[in-house]
Amino acid sequence: MEIPSGVLAFLRRALEEDIGPGDITTDLLIPAEHTSRAHYLAKSDFVLAGIPFVKEVFRLLDPSLSFRSFFKEGESIQKGDIIAEVSGKTSGILTGERVSLNLLQRLSGISTLTRIYRDRIQGCAARIVDTRKTTPGLRFMEKYAVKTGGGSNHRFGLFDGVLIKDNHIGAAGGIREAVFLAKKAHHLMKIEIEVQTVQELQEAIEAGADIVMLDNMSVAEMKVSVTTAHGRVLLEASGGVTLENVRAIAETGVDFISVGALTHSAPAVDISLKIRDKV
Amino acid sequence: MEIPSGVLAFLRRALEEDIGPGDITTDLLIPAEHTSRAHYLAKSDFVLAGIPFVKEVFRLLDPSLSFRSFFKEGESIQKGDIIAEVSGKTSGILTGERVSLNLLQRLSGISTLTRIYRDRIQGCAARIVDTRKTTPGLRFMEKYAVKTGGGSNHRFGLFDGVLIKDNHIGAAGGIREAVFLAKKAHHLMKIEIEVQTVQELQEAIEAGADIVMLDNMSVAEMKVSVTTAHGRVLLEASGGVTLENVRAIAETGVDFISVGALTHSAPAVDISLKIRDKV
Amino acid sequence: MEIPSGVLAFLRRALEEDIGPGDITTDLLIPAEHTSRAHYLAKSDFVLAGIPFVKEVFRLLDPSLSFRSFFKEGESIQKGDIIAEVSGKTSGILTGERVSLNLLQRLSGISTLTRIYRDRIQGCAARIVDTRKTTPGLRFMEKYAVKTGGGSNHRFGLFDGVLIKDNHIGAAGGIREAVFLAKKAHHLMKIEIEVQTVQELQEAIEAGADIVMLDNMSVAEMKVSVTTAHGRVLLEASGGVTLENVRAIAETGVDFISVGALTHSAPAVDISLKIRDKV
Amino acid sequence: MEIPSGVLAFLRRALEEDIGPGDITTDLLIPAEHTSRAHYLAKSDFVLAGIPFVKEVFRLLDPSLSFRSFFKEGESIQKGDIIAEVSGKTSGILTGERVSLNLLQRLSGISTLTRIYRDRIQGCAARIVDTRKTTPGLRFMEKYAVKTGGGSNHRFGLFDGVLIKDNHIGAAGGIREAVFLAKKAHHLMKIEIEVQTVQELQEAIEAGADIVMLDNMSVAEMKVSVTTAHGRVLLEASGGVTLENVRAIAETGVDFISVGALTHSAPAVDISLKIRDKV
Amino acid sequence: MEIPSGVLAFLRRALEEDIGPGDITTDLLIPAEHTSRAHYLAKSDFVLAGIPFVKEVFRLLDPSLSFRSFFKEGESIQKGDIIAEVSGKTSGILTGERVSLNLLQRLSGISTLTRIYRDRIQGCAARIVDTRKTTPGLRFMEKYAVKTGGGSNHRFGLFDGVLIKDNHIGAAGGIREAVFLAKKAHHLMKIEIEVQTVQELQEAIEAGADIVMLDNMSVAEMKVSVTTAHGRVLLEASGGVTLENVRAIAETGVDFISVGALTHSAPAVDISLKIRDKV
Amino acid sequence: MEIPSGVLAFLRRALEEDIGPGDITTDLLIPAEHTSRAHYLAKSDFVLAGIPFVKEVFRLLDPSLSFRSFFKEGESIQKGDIIAEVSGKTSGILTGERVSLNLLQRLSGISTLTRIYRDRIQGCAARIVDTRKTTPGLRFMEKYAVKTGGGSNHRFGLFDGVLIKDNHIGAAGGIREAVFLAKKAHHLMKIEIEVQTVQELQEAIEAGADIVMLDNMSVAEMKVSVTTAHGRVLLEASGGVTLENVRAIAETGVDFISVGALTHSAPAVDISLKIRDKV
Repeated sequence: MEIPSGVLAFLRRALEEDIGPGDITTDLLIPAEHTSRAHYLAKSDFVLAGIPFVKEVFRLLDPSLSFRSFFKEGESIQKGDIIAEVSGKTSGILTGERVSLNLLQRLSGISTLTRIYRDRIQGCAARIVDTRKTTPGLRFMEKYAVKTGGGSNHRFGLFDGVLIKDNHIGAAGGIREAVFLAKKAHHLMKIEIEVQTVQELQEAIEAGADIVMLDNMSVAEMKVSVTTAHGRVLLEASGGVTLENVRAIAETGVDFISVGALTHSAPAVDISLKIRDKV
Repeated sequence: MEIPSGVLAFLRRALEEDIGPGDITTDLLIPAEHTSRAHYLAKSDFVLAGIPFVKEVFRLLDPSLSFRSFFKEGESIQKGDIIAEVSGKTSGILTGERVSLNLLQRLSGISTLTRIYRDRIQGCAARIVDTRKTTPGLRFMEKYAVKTGGGSNHRFGLFDGVLIKDNHIGAAGGIREAVFLAKKAHHLMKIEIEVQTVQELQEAIEAGADIVMLDNMSVAEMKVSVTTAHGRVLLEASGGVTLENVRAIAETGVDFISVGALTHSAPAVDISLKIRDKV
Repeated sequence: MEIPSGVLAFLRRALEEDIGPGDITTDLLIPAEHTSRAHYLAKSDFVLAGIPFVKEVFRLLDPSLSFRSFFKEGESIQKGDIIAEVSGKTSGILTGERVSLNLLQRLSGISTLTRIYRDRIQGCAARIVDTRKTTPGLRFMEKYAVKTGGGSNHRFGLFDGVLIKDNHIGAAGGIREAVFLAKKAHHLMKIEIEVQTVQELQEAIEAGADIVMLDNMSVAEMKVSVTTAHGRVLLEASGGVTLENVRAIAETGVDFISVGALTHSAPAVDISLKIRDKV
Repeated sequence: MEIPSGVLAFLRRALEEDIGPGDITTDLLIPAEHTSRAHYLAKSDFVLAGIPFVKEVFRLLDPSLSFRSFFKEGESIQKGDIIAEVSGKTSGILTGERVSLNLLQRLSGISTLTRIYRDRIQGCAARIVDTRKTTPGLRFMEKYAVKTGGGSNHRFGLFDGVLIKDNHIGAAGGIREAVFLAKKAHHLMKIEIEVQTVQELQEAIEAGADIVMLDNMSVAEMKVSVTTAHGRVLLEASGGVTLENVRAIAETGVDFISVGALTHSAPAVDISLKIRDKV
Repeated sequence: MEIPSGVLAFLRRALEEDIGPGDITTDLLIPAEHTSRAHYLAKSDFVLAGIPFVKEVFRLLDPSLSFRSFFKEGESIQKGDIIAEVSGKTSGILTGERVSLNLLQRLSGISTLTRIYRDRIQGCAARIVDTRKTTPGLRFMEKYAVKTGGGSNHRFGLFDGVLIKDNHIGAAGGIREAVFLAKKAHHLMKIEIEVQTVQELQEAIEAGADIVMLDNMSVAEMKVSVTTAHGRVLLEASGGVTLENVRAIAETGVDFISVGALTHSAPAVDISLKIRDKV
Repeated sequence: MEIPSGVLAFLRRALEEDIGPGDITTDLLIPAEHTSRAHYLAKSDFVLAGIPFVKEVFRLLDPSLSFRSFFKEGESIQKGDIIAEVSGKTSGILTGERVSLNLLQRLSGISTLTRIYRDRIQGCAARIVDTRKTTPGLRFMEKYAVKTGGGSNHRFGLFDGVLIKDNHIGAAGGIREAVFLAKKAHHLMKIEIEVQTVQELQEAIEAGADIVMLDNMSVAEMKVSVTTAHGRVLLEASGGVTLENVRAIAETGVDFISVGALTHSAPAVDISLKIRDKV
């Protein structure tokens, strides 16, 4: 994975947000030549995600800092593990500490929750996918964390996938008409459409949709939908998915289960930065 | 509150992130002249925060859209309430839907969690304050949500408050030396210092600190600290604060209780946007 | 079509590029209060494209200028037609003249060439599609001009479509392996792959590709390809397409014909701006 | 030539335009550690221009890539020549391929057309100069390509040269008045004015103009103009210049011949990038 | 004068610099709906410059504020004059106060010093011109203030004028060679060259320079230079110009006198903002 | 001191402002491979400030240039001293010359004036502090120069300190009310308030203000104020401070003396860059 330039700009601004005209405590109290080695220490169990961005944070702040990780992205971390090390000028380490932790704790929170969902449906063919319910500005990193946790990505934004919702259907005059127009205009893309009933699913299949999103259906309805579809379209379960019902949903035979909570409600994991000896 | 220009730029980029070169579904299926009225509908109980930013999102997207809120920031919302309304071109409403919801759900989640903490310590003098453990890029909005929920703000970043931590103390050669240097250089600011023991608190008070952060102290130690300080400094409890122990902490008599979870682990509240009739 | 914010920023920079610290001739010689009406005059026949961007150029320069077009996008313009009118402060009109003309002449050049290609294959089912061979920075506008001229758009960039080329195939270990990996990772997207021979086409179809690009095939090979595919995949002819051979290619029965020249080699059409009377 | 920071920013955005949130095909199929050597191969004859910008594109994308050119800017390239080589990580090469080719083909197209015009007037004193009819955003690079092809540059924008056109003359109250005002205000710059007739040329000379642009004059009128000017001003022929009439124009004795087509209508030359062996 | 977009961006950043995440005093103490009328009051005599930029500052901050000036740019202001008025929301007025005053005091300082220099040489033909010794980032505004005070502008930057200095001469191999090369390459621009002696002036004239800068010459040498030039080139006196010697320099007959102090050392004039009654 | 990213962006734009599309004289006359060594030469006595920014200017322009200073920031420079040296490509040195000098002369001017003020009050306890009367865009650098000269910094902007002025007091309903509100909302900050009379000072002290600004008081009033305060608050003298009265003010016993002239009216010091031999 290359880090897109838009993400680099985001990280630069995140540092500016925290540092502004200067870290007045560190500038005053930490001598410019003072150096340290600091460790990222796990204070809970989790799935690691975000190291490449943290590395970039320190490179942007001070290219002379040296950063290395002792774990791979997606690895399971145990409470007490030393995850990574940054060494060099103490002032740079202290100034970048908070931004790096804020990122790492949040992204690892997302990958951890994704892993839990994925493990819950082990043995089923369905995949856990994310949504566009991400934190504004962090979509690339959050979707990366979902992948790292073992989930799959849905479309990135409004521009790289056609997803026809009820308002689009209404304006187009019906499922048939909407799918027809979309297939004509976006012949190089799969066409996904949202339906509420098995009847609408039937219409969508006949209209030639590639993927159908089953919006807020009960598990029973989903089962009928899978039978109805009979492999002619991909089916995505969406709405009201929880850790409690995700396995039942997966067992209906749907292809994808989209979970907004992966990105909008994953609690941060607990990590701290400990400055060790001078280096 | 004026929305700082940095936040406006953030909102503009959040829209770009989602829309990129265009909302290909809406551009295709929603006629340019089609208009609607849409409602933000509460699907759970929560404390509202973020309306001014949502309003700005639509203004940036299409100044001809009209947005109004039926509740005030900080008000308690009940499941089923219609919170706000946006009307005008359907294409603009659909294109801004996701960014506006992502913001509103997240910020209301923060204000809701803050309110719960605050209510838990009702009758105590202590205040709930936030930390720098915010989502990168969203600090202004997240700290605003904390205030809206009834909490108070700690310093915004590294630049608008002196907070001397253990590494600073180590480099300066001790609590006394660090506080002395800070008071001399930043005579117009209060000086806050982090301590681990009552002994260190004693030293900090003698050195002339204004505020002392009690780092990860037990409730018993906090009590001793309050007695020791005897009003000569402000005391801030920090580390390991939960809904379970927050009241006991408040009852020790500390002045502030800082809670990182307010911003790093508040789950999003549930809100949906319903397009109503044409307007 | 909404103009994406990235395009607005582009137009702003285009004005800055031309105006820099000021239009020193106009600032000196045209009184601030002087007003005019100016006409965009066609000096050759062409297909109009770009009016919405020109309108935006003047709005960015001076919102008090008034701009209206007498033709619709995609309409055929005859030499001598008055295409559009801008009126208001003469200084603003003169300062925006060159940027507006440079855009309109280029985009109309692209839509005109696209229309010629499209007319050449009239009656065939194939569509003319564009490529990523666009002018750096102008992709949105140039792809818009292709659509306006009657062509269709291929993927916007590297991010919104999977297109497996020979180097990808080599690294993946073969057509089968590459398509398999892509289908697994990008289950929500169609998978397109480039082939050189009918044998490779056969492999791609069996691997489950959705679209196959026939790279630099002769018309005879294309015919065999169409027979081989037998509707199981969409076929895109690519490479060496000219106005001379485009009809023969279309008659083979391929679904798409991609033409790089639409955007990289369309000559500008001839338009001038005539300042009329004072207003 | 130093590449101005504005051009670097342009190149960065050109990469963003193409790559967006990521090259999804390459990220998936090309292993991160895979390396290659790739050659830019000429598929037609042309005059080379743009290598410094292509070099910069790869440096911006991945500083570990190594780029070298086998030809100098302005050299004549024969079909079949290997022009340049880029080597390093295959993913970086593939991701930068299209932007680098789009630039190189366009700029070489401009320098090639300029060279053809220049060769057409060999032996004459006149120079071929460009205009402001450049692609928005690419002016620096396109004017560079004109110079590389053997042409000369006219003013860069509205800010670095005084060019008085008919509307300026009208507002100022006549040629005399306009030139007088301009000489007074811009005493450190040469003053150029546009005229339609020999009579106006006479006026402009008397008013003290330094350069006179002969707008859309016939070859016969230009001859009279050269005689009339008798070396007192520089003369620029402008409007309707083609490869057919450029020599006749040059032979009238004018000093400059400005040709908009150099930048607005030069077809791209044909270059391809061939990935060779692993390195 | 149109305000270039670069200057608008500068003003936006100037406001961000002062306001950052918010005016914490005003946000707290001034009710959102509180309105006022405020007057810019002259506390010394000076020449007014900068009103258009101040107007823009308030427009950027809050478009609902209303601003009007009671004096024209370049007018002489007496101590005690009310210069301008801004009215509307008190919070906006207080938040923009400092940036607006900082600009107005600085620019009026420059125009005032320029006017003093200009008045000192009344009756002489020479003009006072500025230099590139401006405050980084403020060049457009500072050169505008020089013009407003009655001075003339030298080139804006390194890009809109050729000025050959001793290092250029050294590298080129002599005055003759340098001027020759410059005239050949920049045939549409006047060529200025810096000389130290009358001998060098002679060479520059023979080489065909248009303007000669007399660098740090004594008044006596300048007189000889004027005689030597005899109108064949424009002469610019440069270096060591003060209010004491400027008249003597002007009386030598040089055409321009460049004064770095106009922009690098003009003291700010004294202006204050007085909030009047509610409106 | 770390240079904030906002300042780096400022320096980049300052170079763009001067260089624009290119240094046309240097690009033409200085061969690309030509190298030099250049010296910054003091032409007057002053206190040095700004070297770190100058170093950054050259690093941004051309990282291959090598820059070193022979003096430390804050050192007293004598006329004739060689301050610093830059060596490498002559073209880079000449292109960066003006921006680097403009910065160094301005910042050294500020540190020099600050030193003079500070020396004037030697032996007194008071400190010289700056104000927000800085050049828009240069606040960080100018406040740095004040510190370098021996002064202290007041708040950076409107966001990092509470300063209650008369308009705030008016809106809040009195000194007592304003201080009370501020202490409640900004408990982690010191509260400063501006007063005009000793009576108001008394009120401010009783209300619990931390710092009181004595606005335009006479020296006699200041003495009474010091007696009145009796160490309960810090006192800042503000308004009408000059080199003539600063000592008398300091001797009253106030804690701070704020001087706007440090940043708004310090004349630039005189420094020139001399290109030496080739290197």
